[in-house]
Amino acid sequence: MAVRAHTGRRVGDSGTREAILTAARRQFAALGYDRTSMRQVALEAGVDPTLVSHFHGSKQKLFLAVIELPFSPADVLPELLAGDPQEIGVRLARFVVGVLESEQGRSRVVGLIRAASSEPTAAGLVRDLITRELLAPIASGLGADDADYRASLVASQVVGLAVARYIVAVEPLASRDPADVVAALAPTLQRYFTGDLGGR
Amino acid sequence: MAVRAHTGRRVGDSGTREAILTAARRQFAALGYDRTSMRQVALEAGVDPTLVSHFHGSKQKLFLAVIELPFSPADVLPELLAGDPQEIGVRLARFVVGVLESEQGRSRVVGLIRAASSEPTAAGLVRDLITRELLAPIASGLGADDADYRASLVASQVVGLAVARYIVAVEPLASRDPADVVAALAPTLQRYFTGDLGGR
Repeated sequence: MAVRAHTGRRVGDSGTREAILTAARRQFAALGYDRTSMRQVALEAGVDPTLVSHFHGSKQKLFLAVIELPFSPADVLPELLAGDPQEIGVRLARFVVGVLESEQGRSRVVGLIRAASSEPTAAGLVRDLITRELLAPIASGLGADDADYRASLVASQVVGLAVARYIVAVEPLASRDPADVVAALAPTLQRYFTGDLGGR
Repeated sequence: MAVRAHTGRRVGDSGTREAILTAARRQFAALGYDRTSMRQVALEAGVDPTLVSHFHGSKQKLFLAVIELPFSPADVLPELLAGDPQEIGVRLARFVVGVLESEQGRSRVVGLIRAASSEPTAAGLVRDLITRELLAPIASGLGADDADYRASLVASQVVGLAVARYIVAVEPLASRDPADVVAALAPTLQRYFTGDLGGR
């Protein structure tokens, strides 16, 4: 199916999809989940509003189509989880800091955290994405006792680093050398993955 | 000075101030920093807009008047920082989880993090508040090498716990017994305060 956009340009399926996703990505980031509407996305994309529903069904589905992890878990997790289990903390700390130090990685992580912090619907969708794509595979790869709890503790420190260093920019953490931050975090992540968690 | 509110009620200084702060608190929480205006706050408070400027000067000052820590640092920090330095991690973990488990404490912390995550101006104001009221006194109380960096690492795990357990509600961390969470976090905070941070 080819459609005529409001602008009179004739665009194919892929062009239409891309225009919708670009507009949706911009509006979700700028306005948040609640204030973004399918109609305004269609307007910015220059397509008929019915097409947004046609391609994406609902606002929730549209949001899910544009929130993205800054990497492909299938490419990254096997390597992180394989190798010496006693070095998984430093491997993950290096990976996380590497992602957050890159412009594109940081902007996607910050976008996810902003969406999750501002609105319950978005928080639920981000939580489901992270649980399904990251925490569950990590927990199953660990195979440890309490693996899902361990994965969620790891998430708490990773999210906290992103907020404190890159969003709120608490000093001196914000301007500290990345290698120092990796060194400081690695033992925390290692203990959450394989160490004694106390309690019970 | 007594003023006549738009509603015709005659209210004294303290009533006017309180009405402005209540409206401001609600609007900053509901709309975020950018979308809150002095004029709308005045409208909701039922007072003349000039009075909001009269009492608070600017939107930044108004925001600072309503963002609050969920406790008084002067009451809390001396006790946390005194006592066995090797137990400071568990003392802080207990205190933080206690605050976050209380309805009022959680809602204030979540409000601060939401404001800080959503808008740069609010992030800067929250950062300054936290640095001045919490991190600097803690660092000076520690007196350790690199005390300010240590305090900011502690902040990263505390903020991460608040986001992961109470805002995004990542499972099973979100429903875990508070005592387990204290046990899991205490060694992390202890190492950030007094342990080996690696690097350099």
